[in-house]
Amino acid sequence: MKLFSEELVREACSACRVVNLSKASIGEALSVAQYLKDKTGIPFVRMDLGAPGIPANNYGVEAEKAALDRGVANAYPPAAGIPQLKEAGSRFIKSFIDIDISPRSCVPTTGSVQGSFGTFAACCGRIPGKDKVLFIDPGFPIQKSQLKVLGLGWRAFDIYHYRGARRLEAKLREMLAPGDIAAIVYANPDNPAWFCLEEEELKVIGELATEYDAIVTEDLAYFGMDFRKDLGHPGVPPFLPTAARYTDNYILFLSASKIFSYAGQRMALTCISDSLFDRHYPALAERYGDSGFFGNTLINSIFFMMTGGNTSSAQYAYAHMLNLSCDGVIDFVSDTREYERRAARVRDIFCRNGFHIVYDMDVTAPIGNGFYFSLGYGNMTSGELVSELMHYGISCISLETTGSEQQGVRGCVSLIGPDVYPLLEERAAMFHADHS
Amino acid sequence: MKLFSEELVREACSACRVVNLSKASIGEALSVAQYLKDKTGIPFVRMDLGAPGIPANNYGVEAEKAALDRGVANAYPPAAGIPQLKEAGSRFIKSFIDIDISPRSCVPTTGSVQGSFGTFAACCGRIPGKDKVLFIDPGFPIQKSQLKVLGLGWRAFDIYHYRGARRLEAKLREMLAPGDIAAIVYANPDNPAWFCLEEEELKVIGELATEYDAIVTEDLAYFGMDFRKDLGHPGVPPFLPTAARYTDNYILFLSASKIFSYAGQRMALTCISDSLFDRHYPALAERYGDSGFFGNTLINSIFFMMTGGNTSSAQYAYAHMLNLSCDGVIDFVSDTREYERRAARVRDIFCRNGFHIVYDMDVTAPIGNGFYFSLGYGNMTSGELVSELMHYGISCISLETTGSEQQGVRGCVSLIGPDVYPLLEERAAMFHADHS
Repeated sequence: MKLFSEELVREACSACRVVNLSKASIGEALSVAQYLKDKTGIPFVRMDLGAPGIPANNYGVEAEKAALDRGVANAYPPAAGIPQLKEAGSRFIKSFIDIDISPRSCVPTTGSVQGSFGTFAACCGRIPGKDKVLFIDPGFPIQKSQLKVLGLGWRAFDIYHYRGARRLEAKLREMLAPGDIAAIVYANPDNPAWFCLEEEELKVIGELATEYDAIVTEDLAYFGMDFRKDLGHPGVPPFLPTAARYTDNYILFLSASKIFSYAGQRMALTCISDSLFDRHYPALAERYGDSGFFGNTLINSIFFMMTGGNTSSAQYAYAHMLNLSCDGVIDFVSDTREYERRAARVRDIFCRNGFHIVYDMDVTAPIGNGFYFSLGYGNMTSGELVSELMHYGISCISLETTGSEQQGVRGCVSLIGPDVYPLLEERAAMFHADHS
Repeated sequence: MKLFSEELVREACSACRVVNLSKASIGEALSVAQYLKDKTGIPFVRMDLGAPGIPANNYGVEAEKAALDRGVANAYPPAAGIPQLKEAGSRFIKSFIDIDISPRSCVPTTGSVQGSFGTFAACCGRIPGKDKVLFIDPGFPIQKSQLKVLGLGWRAFDIYHYRGARRLEAKLREMLAPGDIAAIVYANPDNPAWFCLEEEELKVIGELATEYDAIVTEDLAYFGMDFRKDLGHPGVPPFLPTAARYTDNYILFLSASKIFSYAGQRMALTCISDSLFDRHYPALAERYGDSGFFGNTLINSIFFMMTGGNTSSAQYAYAHMLNLSCDGVIDFVSDTREYERRAARVRDIFCRNGFHIVYDMDVTAPIGNGFYFSLGYGNMTSGELVSELMHYGISCISLETTGSEQQGVRGCVSLIGPDVYPLLEERAAMFHADHS
C-alpha cells in the first residue's frame, strides 16, 4: 500500500510548481518530499540531494575561525587566490595524483560550480568554431544548465554501451570528428552512476583530447572515493587515475565539498595544466581585450568577473585541510568511507527487494560502493520509478535528467544513516509487494 | 624630480605585462606599483584599489565564527539564501530606504559582482531583441567585462554634460529610443567620481525605465556614504534616494564589502522588486526550461549555476550586521565616515598643489567627500596623468577606463591613512613643481 496517495502527491507537485515529477530536478524532488513530510508528519527516505552526510572537517572550521580572527574579512582576496591555497593545491595533486601542476595554475573558485562555468566560457572561446562541450553521460545536470546561461551548445552520449578502450575510442572519434568540441566533461567516480573510468579509458580520452585539441575537464568531486582502491596515502601508489597522465589538455576540478564535507562554504580549486595555462589564443585576447594567455584570461577576465574573488576565510580553511592531508594528519579516504558502508547496506536492501543496479560494471570489475548508485526495478521506466518511489516515501531523481538512456533513478546514500535502514527496509519491501 | 625613472617604470610595465600604463586596469596599476616598491623599497601612495581601509565589522566576524561552530560548513546553503539573511535584507531596505521588498526577493550573491553578472543575463534574456545594457558612465569597468563573458552588448554615455532632470531625460530618451536596452546601470554614489544622482534625476530614470521597459540596476555599494546627508538612522528620514521609488522595474545591489568592511568574505544581496520577481517571461522559460518567472529564473537557473549557492557562514554574518544596523547597534555611517575625513585632507593636499576635482558638482551642490574622487591637472590627458603620477609614487586609474570623456584619474582614499598625508603632500608638491 502506498504511503502517500496519488491525490496527495499531485497536490504536492502543484504546490511546489513541479510540472512533471518524472523529470524533476534535485531541487524539485526535494521540495515535493519536504511538502509531503510537512503535510503528513511521515518522514522521508531522502536519496535526492548529494549533500555531505557527515560533519565538516574540524581542522577546516578551526583554520577558518583563526583566519577571521586575524582580520582577513576586510581585504579583497587576490583574484588568483591566496598563495597558501595555491601551494597546497599543487602539493595535494602531487601527493595523491602524482601529477605536476604549479601553484600558479591552481585557482580557487566558489565551488566547482564556478570552476566548470568559467572553464566552459574559456574553452569555448579559444578557437573560432570550436565552441561546444561534449558530455560523457550520465552526468551532472547543472553543467548543461551552465551552458544555457552562456548561450553555448553541447553534445552528449550515454557511455553505457561504450565501456572499454576500443568501444570508447570509436564513439569519441565519432563525436569529435566534426572538430567543434572545445571540452570533454565527465566526473570520476561518476555522478550519478558511480562507475569509474579505468586506466585504458582515461588513456583514450587523453590521447584523443590532444589529437582533436579538446580540453579534458575532469571533475574530481568524489576524490579518492573509489573505495575498491586504497587512494588515501600521500606520495604512495596507487595514485588517482586521471586522463591528465595522457594529455596536456586538461583541467581538474577539486572540490572541498565532499572530501572534507565542506559544501556549505563553497570552496574548490580549478587546476589547469601548466602547458594549457601558458597557451596563447588570439580569440581570447580579442574578446576580452587582455593578454590572451589561457590561464590569465580564465582568472582575470572570467572567474574574477563572476565573483570578484572567493571567500577569504574558506580559502585558508581549504589550504589547511589539503596540507594536513599531505602531512598524513587528515585521512579523507577513511573519513568518507562511511559512504561505502552505507551504500553496501542500502544497495543490499534494495536488491533483496527486487531492485537492480543499472550501471553495475566497470570494464574489468563490478562498480564499488560509494556516494551514489543507479537503481532500476523490473521494466519500469525512469519516470515511472522516480514517481512511484515518491509515493512510498523515497525521494530520488530520474536517470533521464542526467543524460542516461537507461531506465532507473539515482540514489544517494549520504543522508541515509543507520537509523534510517529499518524504514528503508520496510518501504522497499512494501514497494516490492505491490509491484512484483 | 621624478621618484622613479622612465626606464624603471618601463621595466615595471614590461615585467607586469602591462602594455599601456595610461589604460591600466586596477589590477595592472596595482602590480606596477607593487613592482616599483619591491624593486626600490620606496613606498607608494596607493590610490588604485577601492578596498576597505578599516577593519572588518567585528559583529560580523563573531557571528560568522559562531555559525561555523554550529556546524554550517557541511550543508549546501539554500539556492535562494538562508531565511535569516533574506529577512534581514528586507528589513534593512525598509529601515534605511523606506522601500518594501519581501524577503523572498532578497537573494545573496558572492559579492555584487555575481549580482550584476547574473542580473545582466536575466535582464537581457527576458525579451527577444531587448538585449543590451545602458551604462550611465563613468562607472565600474568590471560590469562591461561581465558582458564580454556573456557575449552581450552595451551602450554608454558620460553623464558629465547631462546632469539635472531636463538634460538627463533628453539624453536617456535618445539612448532608449531604439528599444533594445534591457537594463540601465549606475552606482549611487558614483564609482569613480563620487557624484550623487539627485532626486529629480532618479525620478527621470525610474519613469523612463517603466516607459521603455528597461530594468534599473542600482549599485548601492557605498550605501549611506553621501555624508552630506544623515542617512544612518533606521526608520527615520532622510532615507536613501533611489530610482526604486519611481518604478517597479528595479534591482538593488547591496554589498557588505564597503559598509561593513567585509570585502574579503564576498557577500552581497541582490534585491529584486517584488513586481519584477513575479513577472513571467516566455523567453526565459524557453531558454532555461524553467517556469520563466523572473525571480525564479534568476535564482535557480542563473545564480545557482554560477556558484551553487553562497558561503554559509558569511550569510549568517551579513544577516547579523544588517539586523544590528536596523536595531541601531551598528552605525555603519559613522563607522565609514573616516573616508569623509580622509577625502577632505587628500583632496585639499592635491588642490593646494595645482590639481582640480573633475566631477565637482551635483545638480544643486558641490559633491561630497567620500571613498573616491576624480582628479585632473591642468590640460593633462587622463593617460598622461595616470602615467606621470606613477613616476611620483602615486598609483591610480585613468578616468578613461571608466567610460569618462573627461581628462583625469580616479583616486581612492581608503588606503590613505593619516600616516600617509606627509608623504602625499611631499609628492604632490614635487609633481606640481615639475609641471607648473
